[in-house]
Amino acid sequence: MGETKLTSIAELGEFGLIDHLTKDIKLTQKSTVTGVGDDAAVLNYSNEKYTLLSNDLLIEGVHFDMSYTPLMHLGYKSAIVNFSDMAAMNGIPLQIVVGLGISSKYTLEALDEFYAGIKKACDRYHVDFVGGDTSSSLHGLFISVTVTGEVAKDKITYRKGAKPGDILCVTGDLGGAYIGLLLLEREKKVFQANPDMQPEMAGKEYILERQLKPEARIDMVEKLNEKGVVPTAMMDISDGLASEALHIAKSSGTGVAIYEERIPIDQNTFDTAREFKLIPSLAALNGGEDYELLFTIAQKDYEKIKEIPGISVIGYMTEEAEGNRLITPDNQSVELKAQGWDALKK
Amino acid sequence: MGETKLTSIAELGEFGLIDHLTKDIKLTQKSTVTGVGDDAAVLNYSNEKYTLLSNDLLIEGVHFDMSYTPLMHLGYKSAIVNFSDMAAMNGIPLQIVVGLGISSKYTLEALDEFYAGIKKACDRYHVDFVGGDTSSSLHGLFISVTVTGEVAKDKITYRKGAKPGDILCVTGDLGGAYIGLLLLEREKKVFQANPDMQPEMAGKEYILERQLKPEARIDMVEKLNEKGVVPTAMMDISDGLASEALHIAKSSGTGVAIYEERIPIDQNTFDTAREFKLIPSLAALNGGEDYELLFTIAQKDYEKIKEIPGISVIGYMTEEAEGNRLITPDNQSVELKAQGWDALKK
Repeated sequence: MGETKLTSIAELGEFGLIDHLTKDIKLTQKSTVTGVGDDAAVLNYSNEKYTLLSNDLLIEGVHFDMSYTPLMHLGYKSAIVNFSDMAAMNGIPLQIVVGLGISSKYTLEALDEFYAGIKKACDRYHVDFVGGDTSSSLHGLFISVTVTGEVAKDKITYRKGAKPGDILCVTGDLGGAYIGLLLLEREKKVFQANPDMQPEMAGKEYILERQLKPEARIDMVEKLNEKGVVPTAMMDISDGLASEALHIAKSSGTGVAIYEERIPIDQNTFDTAREFKLIPSLAALNGGEDYELLFTIAQKDYEKIKEIPGISVIGYMTEEAEGNRLITPDNQSVELKAQGWDALKK
Repeated sequence: MGETKLTSIAELGEFGLIDHLTKDIKLTQKSTVTGVGDDAAVLNYSNEKYTLLSNDLLIEGVHFDMSYTPLMHLGYKSAIVNFSDMAAMNGIPLQIVVGLGISSKYTLEALDEFYAGIKKACDRYHVDFVGGDTSSSLHGLFISVTVTGEVAKDKITYRKGAKPGDILCVTGDLGGAYIGLLLLEREKKVFQANPDMQPEMAGKEYILERQLKPEARIDMVEKLNEKGVVPTAMMDISDGLASEALHIAKSSGTGVAIYEERIPIDQNTFDTAREFKLIPSLAALNGGEDYELLFTIAQKDYEKIKEIPGISVIGYMTEEAEGNRLITPDNQSVELKAQGWDALKK
């Protein structure tokens, strides 16, 4: 190797790495519509619908900490984060395959808990668990879930379809999963310092559930469909509102403006963020794993959206030259930056 | 937990574990034809063809040893073992998604090598690399590849379709990958004892390639198709001939008889097995990772099969009551047992 400079993965970050590794991929199958670069690959297997395909990894010590993660919740979440990728394409999930690498510290009873969580998520979302692979691993638990889904061809929604003037919307509320994680990390430290201490979790059920047992917003995909609204662009919020909004803007060749005071934050999230001396809106902008949907609609669809409970209008898309902006409550415009969770920079 | 007895995973073994974890799965999607229990799930997305879906894990320290596995070969093999699952259903692969967990010891240049191997396999087999997930891991390299494929509805081949009287066939030759692994392990030990020693690999290229850079027998699927032969049952040989033959027999509710002297073994494999003081046919029966196809055909198709170079007839299926037998060169009949590689018992 001589004096060749080698590049550490951390220098690139997750998105830089994916861009680098996939930049020269050629697609040759006629059934491939789109490959790398969105929440799922889009495949053309049938006449009426597109087939969606996506894969998410959950790795012990990186994505979850076994000291406070119940295995049933972990199984549930492993399925949900994949279902959410189908929602992000305006589709519904159909089947999953689960690859599981297990170290010898896990018992059969522990795995039963994990699979019970997977099956519970499949039951709830009407998804079939159709296969996978199970193997030993030398260190820790490694989970790979691959999901298939479907979407009508005229309803597929990519990241790239937003236009200047489109309205930016988000489902549910944001920041809860991140604040729930901070709470779990705090109680872990307290417990490590003094194992007799009781964790202070009373009244925090909502944000703990946001972290440990999120849901995929398939219900919102169905409601948009009922109202006849096809978003112009959509993503699910796994890395944080700011990161995803920038992705949509970049993919669409637009700018984006978000009104800070319009970001939906649950009271429980707000109060607990304050306990941690955090600005709640910043937790919502940069905290990940809420698995809500961020999407844009044409202005003509605004009246239809207003009729759907649980959708907030938080901003609008602009010409690319106007940049990406956060508009503060006192009407200052600051540059929108992503400080989202990035597994590879940890 | 009190005195509850906990069960270690090793007690069950890989197949016992999969049976246990998947025994109460209910399938509800109308697009699911079959789920867990074959080389791939079978999905009904289109009118003409079935869609196939399968996932395989490769975990550092379990499936591969970085001290003698070139990363480009590892990428190639990660794709190939999945393509082989499509061949095992009498189908062809179409797309893959790749999940990769990487510890900080890997540089970007190392990952480039790995992805170059994946892309080379995709090029050669006309498969599109359409997505995946990349993350850090605390320990080692963890690879999850999921593949989609297709097969005409009247040509799908399961493990379960063999009938008494059917002829048992295998493609290529067997045991090479296992002997290649023994050779690599031996040279690793020699190197560890004395780093100045040169590895003795001359003339061993064939078996090393069988281990490090196997191929998927899509070519054989195409040849069977050209001859109008649809196997009655089929698997790919990942765990060893004996293990897979027993799988086909059990799934089909038949017995199986294999003629030991008809098992195809390459001269290079044979000679090197002898160096290791191994009986070559036992290496072929129990060594895994050859990724050849083991299949059964109706007797009426025998003449067609004879015309295809590279297919060996090695036995036949019997009534279940006759058991599973290995017929030795001196015409003794002994019970056929699987001593195949089982990652979870290692």
